Amino acid sequence: MINKLISNIRKTNAPIVVGLDPMLNYIPEHIQKKAFAEFGETLEGAAEAIWQYNKGIVDATCDLIPAVKPQIAMYEQFGIPGLIAYKKTVEYCKAKDLVVIGDIKRGDIGSTSAAYAVGHLGQVQVGSKKYAGFDEDFATVNPYLGSDGVKPFMDVCKEEKKGIFVLVKTSNPSSGEFQDRVIDGRPLYELVGEKVAQWGDELMGDGYSYVGAVVGATYPEMGKVLRKIMPKTFILVPGYGAQGGKGADLVHFFNEDGLGAIVNSSRGIIAAYKQEKYKEFGAENYADASRAAVKDMIADISGALENR
Amino acid sequence: MINKLISNIRKTNAPIVVGLDPMLNYIPEHIQKKAFAEFGETLEGAAEAIWQYNKGIVDATCDLIPAVKPQIAMYEQFGIPGLIAYKKTVEYCKAKDLVVIGDIKRGDIGSTSAAYAVGHLGQVQVGSKKYAGFDEDFATVNPYLGSDGVKPFMDVCKEEKKGIFVLVKTSNPSSGEFQDRVIDGRPLYELVGEKVAQWGDELMGDGYSYVGAVVGATYPEMGKVLRKIMPKTFILVPGYGAQGGKGADLVHFFNEDGLGAIVNSSRGIIAAYKQEKYKEFGAENYADASRAAVKDMIADISGALENR
Repeated sequence: MINKLISNIRKTNAPIVVGLDPMLNYIPEHIQKKAFAEFGETLEGAAEAIWQYNKGIVDATCDLIPAVKPQIAMYEQFGIPGLIAYKKTVEYCKAKDLVVIGDIKRGDIGSTSAAYAVGHLGQVQVGSKKYAGFDEDFATVNPYLGSDGVKPFMDVCKEEKKGIFVLVKTSNPSSGEFQDRVIDGRPLYELVGEKVAQWGDELMGDGYSYVGAVVGATYPEMGKVLRKIMPKTFILVPGYGAQGGKGADLVHFFNEDGLGAIVNSSRGIIAAYKQEKYKEFGAENYADASRAAVKDMIADISGALENR
Repeated sequence: MINKLISNIRKTNAPIVVGLDPMLNYIPEHIQKKAFAEFGETLEGAAEAIWQYNKGIVDATCDLIPAVKPQIAMYEQFGIPGLIAYKKTVEYCKAKDLVVIGDIKRGDIGSTSAAYAVGHLGQVQVGSKKYAGFDEDFATVNPYLGSDGVKPFMDVCKEEKKGIFVLVKTSNPSSGEFQDRVIDGRPLYELVGEKVAQWGDELMGDGYSYVGAVVGATYPEMGKVLRKIMPKTFILVPGYGAQGGKGADLVHFFNEDGLGAIVNSSRGIIAAYKQEKYKEFGAENYADASRAAVKDMIADISGALENR
């Protein structure tokens, strides 16, 4: 799947991923109204609104982008109906030939991590049959529990040719509370990065590993260091746009081959119509606003890469 | 909810929690056969088997125990039908007046952590209505992202009078890979423990905080230190039984008041009928075997507490 991600990036010439993190207050009124008219102000109604909203954005942007990253929390908050909308979104995006990165940030130990891995990337055995629960292409994984938490994901990735992105340095303001603490002269995130590179060596695709890393756009200097520590690791970079990251900050997340990183934007794309810059589109044409925002993001990042 | 947990522990005189972590190969054949006869070898069939299995164990043990801890990964691996079984299990246990600790190990940033908190402990707004997605009493939370990841859970806990258990030192063999790394002369888990104590001060119940900690039974010496660092923190202790922890190892997780910790056993209780010790019950009476195992576990821990 890392090979497919790279091939999709080459095809679109866009090292970006659209974060499908729908909040109800992003969703234009006409979509909410229609969903609530059909299902009432219920969890099912909310799930329908999310699904229609996502579908509009995916239809309007799928020819421009290599991948999407649905954030499962935004669906899980609506309980079972929300998770059904998540699954539908994953399936729809895969049918559009997009690589789907499930932003699930799971991580537990042994058989429990194996269950998450099976549920999201693999297939579960039921009697003589096998079924895929959610079937994303990649999943994000939390490293706090160490190798025991990550290896079960790697086992499933090996079997299914899928991949993971392990949290190394997250984009949020308080990420340094633990991640930046200094151990033998080096911050924890560097040690996690080294471990990611080691895990990655065991599971290589053609040029990059099936084991990727998450490093926030909001910490470009740390990205520069981590790029060197993990040369064959694809870096998923959240924090672009709404969280403050800019194209010029991101060049050091990439290798000389122009690959090695994929930059996520969520709110900046999916709720573009709410920004001053794209407001002429109006809520009715929210998906066209998203398309325009995707083009601008690609230009910003490609421009920065060309000028480095 | 921490007050209710303590009141349940006092009532049962049992500082234990039963981990409802069903694996299909734990489930007696007669239950699987019946479920598959009705739903086929499908995800729905697996979910029905899990639900019936859980129901048997809960019915047979609910008068002896204060709480249960369903591990969501074991349900999530069966996709949507599995998560429906999870939700049914949560509801059923709450109706039996058990405190339900959702072992979800979620953790993300800002609005995303808020979405998890709302989905599992709170209520989500849909138009003019509010709905609870999963509605556990407590949830386990991963601290790797720092305060940004934990505070949104605390906000919901405050509103709903619910609680969390933050991972401090996990029970698995590789937990030391990052958690034991030494920072300014002290291991990371101690710094996380200090932070948990600080967070906890902001959200106190009568004697203990709504913010608890997870510390593995497999590391009793570290439990002793952490008990002192977090005097008002309730400690959820996994790793008893199947993972190797024994009652005598656990006394230092408790305070002098005999409170302050709740010890989890999963496989050792729910699959007790598979052990040599309880095999005379047979698979048909698996729930009675679980009841016997609960009694033995209570005796082991109470005995150790009395003899300390």
